[in-house]
Amino acid sequence: MQLITVGTVAFDRIETPFGKADKVVGGAATYISLAASFFTDQLGLVSVVGEDFPQEMLQTMRGRRIDLDGLEVMEGRESFFWAGRYHYDMNTRDTLETRLNVLLDLDPKLPEAYTGAPYLMLGNLDPRVQAKVLAQMSERPALVVMDTMNFWMDSALEKLTEVIAQVDILAINDAEARQLSGEHSLVRAADKILGMGPKYLVVKKGEHGALLFGQGRVFFAPALPLEDIVDPTGAGDTFAGGFIGFLARTQDHSFENLKRAIIVGSALASFCCERFGVERLLEIDREDIDQRIQQFVDLVDFDIQVVDGE
Amino acid sequence: MQLITVGTVAFDRIETPFGKADKVVGGAATYISLAASFFTDQLGLVSVVGEDFPQEMLQTMRGRRIDLDGLEVMEGRESFFWAGRYHYDMNTRDTLETRLNVLLDLDPKLPEAYTGAPYLMLGNLDPRVQAKVLAQMSERPALVVMDTMNFWMDSALEKLTEVIAQVDILAINDAEARQLSGEHSLVRAADKILGMGPKYLVVKKGEHGALLFGQGRVFFAPALPLEDIVDPTGAGDTFAGGFIGFLARTQDHSFENLKRAIIVGSALASFCCERFGVERLLEIDREDIDQRIQQFVDLVDFDIQVVDGE
Repeated sequence: MQLITVGTVAFDRIETPFGKADKVVGGAATYISLAASFFTDQLGLVSVVGEDFPQEMLQTMRGRRIDLDGLEVMEGRESFFWAGRYHYDMNTRDTLETRLNVLLDLDPKLPEAYTGAPYLMLGNLDPRVQAKVLAQMSERPALVVMDTMNFWMDSALEKLTEVIAQVDILAINDAEARQLSGEHSLVRAADKILGMGPKYLVVKKGEHGALLFGQGRVFFAPALPLEDIVDPTGAGDTFAGGFIGFLARTQDHSFENLKRAIIVGSALASFCCERFGVERLLEIDREDIDQRIQQFVDLVDFDIQVVDGE
Repeated sequence: MQLITVGTVAFDRIETPFGKADKVVGGAATYISLAASFFTDQLGLVSVVGEDFPQEMLQTMRGRRIDLDGLEVMEGRESFFWAGRYHYDMNTRDTLETRLNVLLDLDPKLPEAYTGAPYLMLGNLDPRVQAKVLAQMSERPALVVMDTMNFWMDSALEKLTEVIAQVDILAINDAEARQLSGEHSLVRAADKILGMGPKYLVVKKGEHGALLFGQGRVFFAPALPLEDIVDPTGAGDTFAGGFIGFLARTQDHSFENLKRAIIVGSALASFCCERFGVERLLEIDREDIDQRIQQFVDLVDFDIQVVDGE
């Protein structure tokens, strides 16, 4: 295996000001692995579902060469369920309901074939679970990327910082970067967080794009202005999946290539928002992705000489 | 004259989570003309102040070759005063106090030398005043840029849309674009607003950058991540001043050059936020601006080929 992902595989109920979806397949690892599957066919997923999880979706994932040997199916149990409602600005949301179900008993055991993978994506999940996965790797992967959320900062900060200290790249949103660092300025927040261990910090800002900090440099990637944002759920995970998938494919961890990976992740995330759940990710092909990447190139392209003196 | 600006010249009291300024010089036309003065020395200002307005600031403006023949000084009266408090995110603010004072009697009369200017900046102000200035131009300027705010959408929408229909470029923030159009998606909002008359729409998003829509194209300019944002007051006006100043200097209204003008405006706005009031704008020189523009170039620079097929 080349890339291992751990995270939730779940059901979501989603309400936005413009529509709702009652029970769609979601979960961080679902989005991550579907996005990454465009770039690698050596992709293993570590998670747990109940027996209510649809076989067709598992077949779809296998059809994309996502290895599911690391996905435990618990008999007689129900999958993790999350319900949320987006505010009018679509950048903030309230959690309406969380049923942990099988997630309560997730004790990941990595298949032997997974333990030597050079790329590891720690999707948003209890940091104790993230740590267990990291500990089972036979050697330190070439690149570990981690996502997390404010919930773990509130409830498990000590364990969380322990895991953060061990990863190469932390990818969180702007509010989370501010909370984790206690700094309002994202520049200062990045300084503090990079002092906690990671080499790079990616700050995801939803419809406002993403920032990459590290090696004393900063890069800003826009988000594509979309005609309709149907459902932002999973956009951050899709971003992460495209990001690490591209890095796994290119095996180049330079700042220049991380910038490309951010554009690729942003392109995939933009598709994600166009439909509820993973629907849009299942429709697109490599050519669609290439076309969208070109839109990003055009979106920020400008050519300026410094302003000439008088 | 090459560029005429109408807008407020005023005092501000500003509170942020990180500091406060009791009574500093502010006002849309102040920021616009100081920013534009880096690019043209044929710059006229149309506004009104009371006799409390500091002579030293007027001297400073004259020193930057800002013509003040269009600035009325009302004896025995007080200048417009605004007080506001920024929220923690520095992107939203509450107005604490507004004393219109001389602004109540602003009835602009353009000096003869102003009426043939090819560039006109209608700073945020009562649209009736903006319309009066536009009506006094001896011929239609080559380029009219307009700023406005939600207050006028709430209180004078009919007059406002009349003025919007006559300008080339409208520059407003994202919340205002959504309010004016009734559309949440900025892409749809831009479509509607461009249908109201302007050829281009600039959507200012504060720390999240700016978007340019028009001619079926879209451009995204980042904001520079700053270590400390001391005071965002006037950043939008400074942006507008740099934007139209650069266009007046280059006399090129192509989409490519509008993109450059947005980068220049963004660079100037980033300086504005580093101190209270206009302080920082009075410190910098052309070389500082050039260096900052280079930071914008580096910030968004990436080089990506479309992702190769398997």
